[in-house]
Amino acid sequence: MSSVFHGAITVSIFGQSHAPGIGVVVDGLPAGEKIDLDELQAFLTRRAPGTGSWSTPRKEADAPEILSGLADGVTCGAPLAAVIRNTNTRSKDYSNLRDIPRPGHADFTAQLKYGGWQDVAGGGHFSGRLTAPLCIAGGICKQILARRGITVGAHIAGIGGILDTAYDPVNVTAEDLLLTSKKRFPVLDDAAGEKMQAAIEQARSELDSLGGLIECGVTGLPVGLGDPMLDGMENRMARLVFAIPAVKGVEFGAGFAVAEMRGSENNDPFYYDGDTVKTRTNHAGGILGGITNGMPLVFRAAVKPTPSIARVQDSVSLSQGVDTKLEIHGRHDPCIVPRAVPCVEAAAAIAVYDALLSQQAIQQKEK
Amino acid sequence: MSSVFHGAITVSIFGQSHAPGIGVVVDGLPAGEKIDLDELQAFLTRRAPGTGSWSTPRKEADAPEILSGLADGVTCGAPLAAVIRNTNTRSKDYSNLRDIPRPGHADFTAQLKYGGWQDVAGGGHFSGRLTAPLCIAGGICKQILARRGITVGAHIAGIGGILDTAYDPVNVTAEDLLLTSKKRFPVLDDAAGEKMQAAIEQARSELDSLGGLIECGVTGLPVGLGDPMLDGMENRMARLVFAIPAVKGVEFGAGFAVAEMRGSENNDPFYYDGDTVKTRTNHAGGILGGITNGMPLVFRAAVKPTPSIARVQDSVSLSQGVDTKLEIHGRHDPCIVPRAVPCVEAAAAIAVYDALLSQQAIQQKEK
Amino acid sequence: MSSVFHGAITVSIFGQSHAPGIGVVVDGLPAGEKIDLDELQAFLTRRAPGTGSWSTPRKEADAPEILSGLADGVTCGAPLAAVIRNTNTRSKDYSNLRDIPRPGHADFTAQLKYGGWQDVAGGGHFSGRLTAPLCIAGGICKQILARRGITVGAHIAGIGGILDTAYDPVNVTAEDLLLTSKKRFPVLDDAAGEKMQAAIEQARSELDSLGGLIECGVTGLPVGLGDPMLDGMENRMARLVFAIPAVKGVEFGAGFAVAEMRGSENNDPFYYDGDTVKTRTNHAGGILGGITNGMPLVFRAAVKPTPSIARVQDSVSLSQGVDTKLEIHGRHDPCIVPRAVPCVEAAAAIAVYDALLSQQAIQQKEK
Amino acid sequence: MSSVFHGAITVSIFGQSHAPGIGVVVDGLPAGEKIDLDELQAFLTRRAPGTGSWSTPRKEADAPEILSGLADGVTCGAPLAAVIRNTNTRSKDYSNLRDIPRPGHADFTAQLKYGGWQDVAGGGHFSGRLTAPLCIAGGICKQILARRGITVGAHIAGIGGILDTAYDPVNVTAEDLLLTSKKRFPVLDDAAGEKMQAAIEQARSELDSLGGLIECGVTGLPVGLGDPMLDGMENRMARLVFAIPAVKGVEFGAGFAVAEMRGSENNDPFYYDGDTVKTRTNHAGGILGGITNGMPLVFRAAVKPTPSIARVQDSVSLSQGVDTKLEIHGRHDPCIVPRAVPCVEAAAAIAVYDALLSQQAIQQKEK
Repeated sequence: MSSVFHGAITVSIFGQSHAPGIGVVVDGLPAGEKIDLDELQAFLTRRAPGTGSWSTPRKEADAPEILSGLADGVTCGAPLAAVIRNTNTRSKDYSNLRDIPRPGHADFTAQLKYGGWQDVAGGGHFSGRLTAPLCIAGGICKQILARRGITVGAHIAGIGGILDTAYDPVNVTAEDLLLTSKKRFPVLDDAAGEKMQAAIEQARSELDSLGGLIECGVTGLPVGLGDPMLDGMENRMARLVFAIPAVKGVEFGAGFAVAEMRGSENNDPFYYDGDTVKTRTNHAGGILGGITNGMPLVFRAAVKPTPSIARVQDSVSLSQGVDTKLEIHGRHDPCIVPRAVPCVEAAAAIAVYDALLSQQAIQQKEK
Repeated sequence: MSSVFHGAITVSIFGQSHAPGIGVVVDGLPAGEKIDLDELQAFLTRRAPGTGSWSTPRKEADAPEILSGLADGVTCGAPLAAVIRNTNTRSKDYSNLRDIPRPGHADFTAQLKYGGWQDVAGGGHFSGRLTAPLCIAGGICKQILARRGITVGAHIAGIGGILDTAYDPVNVTAEDLLLTSKKRFPVLDDAAGEKMQAAIEQARSELDSLGGLIECGVTGLPVGLGDPMLDGMENRMARLVFAIPAVKGVEFGAGFAVAEMRGSENNDPFYYDGDTVKTRTNHAGGILGGITNGMPLVFRAAVKPTPSIARVQDSVSLSQGVDTKLEIHGRHDPCIVPRAVPCVEAAAAIAVYDALLSQQAIQQKEK
Repeated sequence: MSSVFHGAITVSIFGQSHAPGIGVVVDGLPAGEKIDLDELQAFLTRRAPGTGSWSTPRKEADAPEILSGLADGVTCGAPLAAVIRNTNTRSKDYSNLRDIPRPGHADFTAQLKYGGWQDVAGGGHFSGRLTAPLCIAGGICKQILARRGITVGAHIAGIGGILDTAYDPVNVTAEDLLLTSKKRFPVLDDAAGEKMQAAIEQARSELDSLGGLIECGVTGLPVGLGDPMLDGMENRMARLVFAIPAVKGVEFGAGFAVAEMRGSENNDPFYYDGDTVKTRTNHAGGILGGITNGMPLVFRAAVKPTPSIARVQDSVSLSQGVDTKLEIHGRHDPCIVPRAVPCVEAAAAIAVYDALLSQQAIQQKEK
Repeated sequence: MSSVFHGAITVSIFGQSHAPGIGVVVDGLPAGEKIDLDELQAFLTRRAPGTGSWSTPRKEADAPEILSGLADGVTCGAPLAAVIRNTNTRSKDYSNLRDIPRPGHADFTAQLKYGGWQDVAGGGHFSGRLTAPLCIAGGICKQILARRGITVGAHIAGIGGILDTAYDPVNVTAEDLLLTSKKRFPVLDDAAGEKMQAAIEQARSELDSLGGLIECGVTGLPVGLGDPMLDGMENRMARLVFAIPAVKGVEFGAGFAVAEMRGSENNDPFYYDGDTVKTRTNHAGGILGGITNGMPLVFRAAVKPTPSIARVQDSVSLSQGVDTKLEIHGRHDPCIVPRAVPCVEAAAAIAVYDALLSQQAIQQKEK
């Protein structure tokens, strides 16, 4: 077990940063779902390195080839496999990474876990590049969900202490969630976005990097997705979102703020909006008892600052058993948060679609 | 899928608040592990309702009967099953819950998911009472981990804005983690604890409830537990911790604070402490690339305020399709955070032990 | 992993022959299914030891207590847990089994696998008694399937070379499958049954035991259950049927006879029977490409003779490292085949119901 | 769930006969295992169509490209992905298969399961071609097992009623198991093999096909692999072997013959061979209570005759709702048994290696 999600659908991710390829197999997709490959490519492009100051100039085509699972562009019931070739790999010597682990990276833990056999080039299987196959799987789920009226969207909620406008947890619409999908810098408030970009540029110029916050929303959910205890929507979502390497925290609805709230504040009162039961507030983030309640599902993920910074850092030489200094060369994103936005959407889409399929399996009889 | 954790060990939790019993089956425990039932009982007593002002006076014996899995008090390789009888159930009429869902509870979502067939008495399978079997499984894992030098502990990090002393993420010891295991009110700083209890009493007197924060630490971990992407320690831990009904957020190490940090701050520099590689800070919470790095694993969980409050609340009548008022009778914990502390330990212990067993399976050859 | 089936439903079996109890947790049952406990008891009685010459006189009440999962006799969406108390346990000394393993039993393999910690009393978790919880889970699935028009039945196909009439693989009806459910000795041809019983009595009088063959049929199946490759109906069914300790072979449709057939014989020609596509023969046993084709699903399981025989047998003393003789005392079924018939039905019912739930999850769009 | 095996290792198979590619992802392989790609190619060549009269002349290169999981030819801990390009696809019109299903094929069941969206070209995901990725995964497991002294081998046990010499279930050696790995026609008795080939040629000339029997053996197994009930070696093995499309029966040790045996015959007496406990006979096929006992593991699989025969057959037109005749064009193996031999080895190797890794996870303490 490691890079496999095994539920109603199975998502098996493979690849290393500098291996011949990376990709994904998605098993269990229903037959008959048209997959728009242009739309999928557009989604992948959102996580691709861009021209902005915040991203690395390595140009990844990231054009997946669908090896199987489609017939005439429609899912055929067979597992869908997609592969992205690693073309822009550099042949430089990475063996140093076996000796002097980069702070904040998996170099050290991988070295000990895999006994020195891990593929260190470009971070190997731990590279952020592995979120591309996650986005393939998630992008496909997003398309299928959209046809069922379920919309998944996300935006940068904050970078370096500069905050974007938050989604309205009660009234956020599908249109709101789609706002950032076309933006080069995915914020709701472009003025705040300008400040964030300036902060990123500032950090870069100081050979440093910035972390941030991503907020994700899902609308159009039926009541009843998710299961008690181990398979609640929070559990499912968290498991998927933590698959994005830099995420260090996940919170739903009011999240950590509940720690300072009273029940009378936090409880979301029910009311009828026409024939539909809604809640006047949405501190629950659309989830009660692990199960969707029909309100927008809203959560946030904390993304750590890129650990690859150009400053000289303290590390150790594992071969010599002594403390040493490390200087990381090459160019790295001073802030991966913008590129992580579609990754969070992808993780959410997989979690939601899997829960939807599971729910169809265990349909109860009407009373 | 719902109340099952299926990894190297399988934990299957069952029961409803007012059914004949609740319990758990743990499959996959290695043979030859002595289980100290008195110690297990002492652990369970930590989550039992006490005499404090913060907890409900229902006296749950919570004495599990081990139906199988032990021979002469030692695991025998067969699945371990434990059951707790529900003796103190009240025969009052709960049918109102099918009609007027309690805000903040699963009444509404369960009603729609299960088509009205759910067991509403006492919250049914969604009751906090179901954390007792989680604690049985976790308490057993804790004992086995302790014999391997791995200690799991937790404390109330905050209630109603009053904060306890935090664990030192770098130097926290097993002794520190055990400090709260004997306390009636599990905080490190008893003076802060007094204030928290006063705040709880205050909330209770105002027919209200309080949420809080729980911090958990694990020491003695080898380097190398956890796997990339979907089965990192964050993913595993989050999936287990969100099994506790009231948890709305989970963060590791610096957690959400990383969103405002720079890489130069957040990166934990490596150094040699004798023959051991350590990090000078521990913003990573002991996890790099999803894999333990030998530093203390530290995380926090946000617990929402008890939704059952005595105030009149707004809700709906599902049968009549109109808005209505709801007044919840009976006595409820005005703050479940103290009792949730051992539950978080249990969740963490299961996640860690499962990762440990998985790691033994996939031992790499030494280079 | 061991005694857990983890699919759309999860079945977790626990217990040892002489532990306080045995039982099962079934997670994932849809809410709203009435479970007739009398009918379940009647089903369990079919595997209980009877008065016939072929079965041991130990009187097992085998009356399961449903601890959870039902509300007013109807599934409520929570995991269903059932336990059977082991009342008729004998306190005799079983420690000999750790030293001198019984041929044909798991004594030797359990001793080495579990390092001597296994529960040897009465065979521990390897006892045939553990098929009782399998029958609880299967009996519940049978009831739900019956309401969907799907019938599962089985009969003794042969014992000691004496054959029963086989099901007509093309025209077998639900009524045919139910014929043996009321019989004390579950054969279609009672005359053959008499001969089988005489053969069993003969074997018993010679301190020996007999094996046999069980044939199982399922009617009323929709087209489309099962999945390609790893989750075909054969794979699913075989995994469940081999859970019955004495089964050493499973074959579907023409089974091993296909090895000597030609394609022109084995292929089942399609034809229209009214609006329904059927096959004129049914060598496929109702399964093509792992997927049900709407014809009766038919398979057979080979059951080995009871290994516990009263004759002196050759074995070893593990403590002394020498060959030795073993004489097994106590009374044992000279033939477990009759009691294994409902177990095979139970295994089949679980496999079919799980496939049915999975299929509902992955419903394709109509073309 | 469908084409995924999810245990200590996860094997996810993808592809359709005429899609761009077929392949497999194997997740969970320990790091540090050298994979000999030439040896893997040689293994795959054994299932490739040959020059014999029994096989189709389509020349599949079947040269897998390893996309990930290796670094310098050694497993690196990341998932191993391999893909085989489908180059020799023919662009002929397969749409007829949606209308007139071939008897004995999955055309009909796939049509109804997938609502007409399935990829019919060349059988799509149901093609025997999908056993190539199974052989990649199995070939890798075989290499790793061989380094641990565990040998997997198989041979044609019979075709069209002509039998090969059987393995000696007690004394079969690794050398015996390797005998057929170099043979073009994998039998032990070449004279019998000549007769089988003649029978195949005869069947072909009569526009017909033949089924057969494959026997597989595994030597060098430690005592203790496999688990009780649902995860016994029989369950695990059967689940993998039934992944080979044409298999309709699996039996272990004496198999179906146990149905006519007495306990005194079938029980395998223990004895000491030096310091090792062995059994004088091996009717158990090396498995007691689902767990390996150290004797050779022996099983047989029944393979149905190729359903694609050139004779005119009865079928139906689904579009017109009438009975019709079908004549299958193209060349097809008149007997797939020879090519299925390495597939059975592959299935067995995956099952054994997965059980070995699981066993390492759950190591008991010594008494």
